[in-house]
Amino acid sequence: MSTIRHALQIKREDDFAAWYQEVITAADMAEESGVRGCMVIKPWGYGIWERMQRLLDDRIKATGHDNAYFPIFIPLSNFAREAEHVEGFAKEMAVVTHHRLIAGEDGGLVPDPEARLEEPLVVRPTSETIIGDAMARWVQSWRDLPLKLNQWANVVRWEMRTRMFLRTSEFLWQEGHTAHVDAAEAKEHTLRMLEVYRAFADEDLSLAVVAGEKPENERFPGAVETWSIEAMMQDGKALQAGTSHYLGTNFAEASGIRYQDREGQQALAHTTSWGLSTRMVGGVIMTHGDDDGLRVPPRVAPWQVVILPMLRDKPEDEALIDYCETLRATLAGQSALGEPLRVQLDTRPGKAAAKRWDWVRKGAPVIIEVGGRDMENGVVSLLRRDRLWDTATGKPAFETPLREVAGQTVPDILADMQAALLAQARERRDANITRGLADFAEVERHFAASRYPGWVEVQWSKPTGAALDDVVERLKAHRLTIRNVPMDAAPVDGSCIFTGEPATERVLLAKAY
Amino acid sequence: MSTIRHALQIKREDDFAAWYQEVITAADMAEESGVRGCMVIKPWGYGIWERMQRLLDDRIKATGHDNAYFPIFIPLSNFAREAEHVEGFAKEMAVVTHHRLIAGEDGGLVPDPEARLEEPLVVRPTSETIIGDAMARWVQSWRDLPLKLNQWANVVRWEMRTRMFLRTSEFLWQEGHTAHVDAAEAKEHTLRMLEVYRAFADEDLSLAVVAGEKPENERFPGAVETWSIEAMMQDGKALQAGTSHYLGTNFAEASGIRYQDREGQQALAHTTSWGLSTRMVGGVIMTHGDDDGLRVPPRVAPWQVVILPMLRDKPEDEALIDYCETLRATLAGQSALGEPLRVQLDTRPGKAAAKRWDWVRKGAPVIIEVGGRDMENGVVSLLRRDRLWDTATGKPAFETPLREVAGQTVPDILADMQAALLAQARERRDANITRGLADFAEVERHFAASRYPGWVEVQWSKPTGAALDDVVERLKAHRLTIRNVPMDAAPVDGSCIFTGEPATERVLLAKAY
Repeated sequence: MSTIRHALQIKREDDFAAWYQEVITAADMAEESGVRGCMVIKPWGYGIWERMQRLLDDRIKATGHDNAYFPIFIPLSNFAREAEHVEGFAKEMAVVTHHRLIAGEDGGLVPDPEARLEEPLVVRPTSETIIGDAMARWVQSWRDLPLKLNQWANVVRWEMRTRMFLRTSEFLWQEGHTAHVDAAEAKEHTLRMLEVYRAFADEDLSLAVVAGEKPENERFPGAVETWSIEAMMQDGKALQAGTSHYLGTNFAEASGIRYQDREGQQALAHTTSWGLSTRMVGGVIMTHGDDDGLRVPPRVAPWQVVILPMLRDKPEDEALIDYCETLRATLAGQSALGEPLRVQLDTRPGKAAAKRWDWVRKGAPVIIEVGGRDMENGVVSLLRRDRLWDTATGKPAFETPLREVAGQTVPDILADMQAALLAQARERRDANITRGLADFAEVERHFAASRYPGWVEVQWSKPTGAALDDVVERLKAHRLTIRNVPMDAAPVDGSCIFTGEPATERVLLAKAY
Repeated sequence: MSTIRHALQIKREDDFAAWYQEVITAADMAEESGVRGCMVIKPWGYGIWERMQRLLDDRIKATGHDNAYFPIFIPLSNFAREAEHVEGFAKEMAVVTHHRLIAGEDGGLVPDPEARLEEPLVVRPTSETIIGDAMARWVQSWRDLPLKLNQWANVVRWEMRTRMFLRTSEFLWQEGHTAHVDAAEAKEHTLRMLEVYRAFADEDLSLAVVAGEKPENERFPGAVETWSIEAMMQDGKALQAGTSHYLGTNFAEASGIRYQDREGQQALAHTTSWGLSTRMVGGVIMTHGDDDGLRVPPRVAPWQVVILPMLRDKPEDEALIDYCETLRATLAGQSALGEPLRVQLDTRPGKAAAKRWDWVRKGAPVIIEVGGRDMENGVVSLLRRDRLWDTATGKPAFETPLREVAGQTVPDILADMQAALLAQARERRDANITRGLADFAEVERHFAASRYPGWVEVQWSKPTGAALDDVVERLKAHRLTIRNVPMDAAPVDGSCIFTGEPATERVLLAKAY
C-alpha cells in the first residue's frame, strides 16, 4: 500500500477542531466577516444551504404549512410577556435604541440623541412572541385551527464564543409555528415535525440522527416538551440538529391566542414551534468530511457533477470543450434522485490539477476530467468523491468509462453515494453508542479512557427539580450533557445510574457542540 | 346590461389609495404588525413573493451569479467610508447600541449599560460596503474577475410614512453585487441586469415597464449611473420597480477592491449593484387589481387553479370530493407556462359561495366550482379571474366544460391569461403617455387638467448642477419627478422644455410612488 498525500494539511485524528476550520476554508464555504460573531457564507456554503432550504421547504409545505414573514424587530415589552422565555433569552440579544445617525464631534457618525426610540427594539432571537401576536388576531374560531405557519429568516443571539456554522451571532433558519385546538393535536404535530426533521436529516443529508425528547433542563425557554434530533459527529460528539417544541398554552396565554370552540366556549389554543438552522451545514461537514475536504451528499450538492476539460490555452481546446459540452448536455437532461441532475462544465482559467483538487476539497460528488487522450479514445476520467483513492497505488481512483456510458450511469452513482454516506454515518453511530454501563463510575471511566468515547446510553429514573440539578452538575464535571431520550430505545430493565431508583427511561449522554 | 355587484367596497376610481389598502386586506396579503413601520406578510402575499423569488433567482443564476450571505450588521466606521453613500443613508437607519438586557427599576427590561457596544452597528440598509470588504479579500488578480454575487435578504431603512409593500421600514429584496476589470464591462453588466429586470417584470409579472437611465438627481448614493424600470399604475402614477447601478470605482476605492491586471499592474475594480424588492408585490396589485380584488398573473400565482367542491356536510360529499380529486390529479400532472401546474383542492369548512369570493379577491387565476349537478352531468363550473363577469346578466361568467376538457385546457387558459394581462398593461401604459407638449406651461396644464394624467414624455437638454436643481424644484411644485430616460425613446427633434436649449434626450415626467 502506497502512502496517500491527502488534500488537507490537518487530519481529523490530529486536531478535529482545526480540521473543521480547514475544511471550511479549503472548501471555500464561509469566512469571518470582520463583524463580531457574524460570518460571510460564501457561494459553495450558501449553495448547500439553498439546497437544504429547497428540500426541507418541500417537506414543510407537504405537511400543510404556509410560509409567511414577520418583523425582524420585537418591541421590548412584547418580548417580556412570557416569563421563562425572557429569562432564557434576555442575556444575549441585539438591542436597537436609535433610528438615525448624525455627525459626531470627531467628524465620525454617532447615534442621534434626538432619534432615541421610546421603546427599544430587539432583533429577533426567535419569533414566538411576535407570531403569537399575529395568531391572536387571526384565530377566532375552531374553524381557524389548526393554523400552520413557517418562516425562513435570519435571527440574532449575541454569542461570546463563536464557531462558523455551529454558533454565530446571526444565523439563518426556518421556524415553524402552529396553533391547535388541544394538547393532543399539538403534541401529535410536535412529533410529526420532529419526524419531518428526522427524514430530512437521514434521507437528504445522510446523517443517521437519533430522535427523542430532551430532558427538562434542556427545554426551550417556555416550552412544555422539547424534542430533538441528535447527530453523531466524527469526533464522537453530539450535534443537536433540529428541535420541535410543544409549548402548551404558555405562549397562547401570553399573546391571547383564544378561539371559540364547537360548543361556543372560549378556549386557549395549544401551540408548537420547531426550528432548523445553518448549523446543519456544520453537521454535514463533521459527519461527511474527510482528510481531503468535504464530501457533500448528492441531494444537497449545488453541483453534483463537475466536468473539467484539461485546457492548454491552445486551438485544440475548442474540440475538447465541445466533447465535454455534449456530455454536459446529456447529463443535464437526466434526473438523479428525483430531480434534474445538476452539472457544471468548468472552463475557468487555471491548471486542471489545481481545479480538480479544488472540487475534491469542496466535495463535489462526481468529478469528470477530460484530456486530449480521453477524447481520442471516446472515454472520460471519472472520480467518485466517496471512493477517492486507489489504496494500492496511493493515487486518485479514476475510472475511464466511455463517454456515453458515463452519460447514462452517473444518476446511479449519485444514488449509490447518497445511500453509502448514510450507511457510513449509521454504522459509525451504531458502533459508537455504548450500552450496559452499570453505574456512573463506569460512565466516568468510559469517558476518561478514550479520546473519542462516542455516546453512552444509560437508564435513569427521570429525576426532576433538585435531583435533576444534581445529575446535571455531575455530568457537567465531565463536560457531558443528556442529549435526549431516544424514541426507539429498548424498554428499561434496571435501575437509574444516578439515583439507584428503578429506571423509567433510557437517555443518551455525550459531549456536544 | 345588468348592474354588477363587485366584491370590494371601494372602487379604484373612487379612492385609489383606499382601494389599494382594501385589496391587501381582502386578498389577505399583509397587515400592520404593531411594530413601527414593519408589516406582517401573510401567506398569500408571501406566496406571491416566493414565486417572484424563484423566477427572478433562476434568471439571476442563468446570468452567472452565485448567491451568498453577508452579515445583517454593518459597523458604523465601515458604513462611513463612501461619502455620498453615508450622506444618502445616514438619516434613516436602525442602530444597535447594546447586546444585552437587564431588569430595570420598574421591573421591565432595559438595555444593560455594561453591554454597550464600543462601536454601534447599523442594521443594513443595503450591503455595498460590507460586500465591498469581502470583494477586497476575494479579488487578487484579473482571473478573479468578473465576480458576480447576489444576496436575498431583509434590509431596514427607517421610514416615517409607510405604506404596505411600497414603503416599509423592513423589506425583503435581492441585491446583486459584481466587480469587473473595467468600466466597459461593468456598464455592460449594469444594463444586462436591467434587462433581466425588464424581462422578469414583463414576462413573469405582465407589467409592461419602461427601462431607462435615471437623471443625476435620482442616482443611488455613490453611483455613477443609475438605471431603472418604471411601471405605470392604474392611477397613472409611476412605480420604480427595480434599479441597476454602475458604481464606477467609488466603492472599490472605499473598500480597496484592487486586482493585478494582465500586465502585472494594480488596478481598481469597477463595481455594479442592482436590487428588486417586495415593493414589486405592490406594483402587481396596482397594475392588475380590479374592483373585485387582486388578479395574480398565472406565473406568480401560488395556486393557479383552485377547485371548490360545493360541500353540504352530508354523506354525498365524499363522491363529490372524489370527483374533484380526479380533476386535481389530472391538472397536477400537467405543465403550464413551463412549470408543473399549481392546483389546490379546497375542502376547508365554509360555504362554497363565501369561499369562491375569497379566491376571487385573492385573484387565483382559475376557480373551478363543482356541485352535485355538475358531477351528474360530468362537467365543472369554471371561472376565469380575468373575465369574471357576464356583463349581460351581471353574474359571474361561469363556463361548464366537461371535466376531461377542463383537465386538458387549463394550461392554455393560464398562458392566455398571462399574455392578456401583459397586453392590458401595455395598452394602458401606451395610451397614457402624452407626447408633444411644447413647453413647461403645457405640462403644467396637462397635469392640472386631469385626475389620472398618466406620464408625459418631454425633450430636455440634460441640465446639471444648479440648472438641474431648478428643474427639480419646478417639477416638485407639481409633485412631479423625472422617472427615467427611456432606452427606446425616439430621437430628439426639438428644444428643452425647461431651458429652451437644443434637446439631447427624452425624459418621462410623472407623479410617483
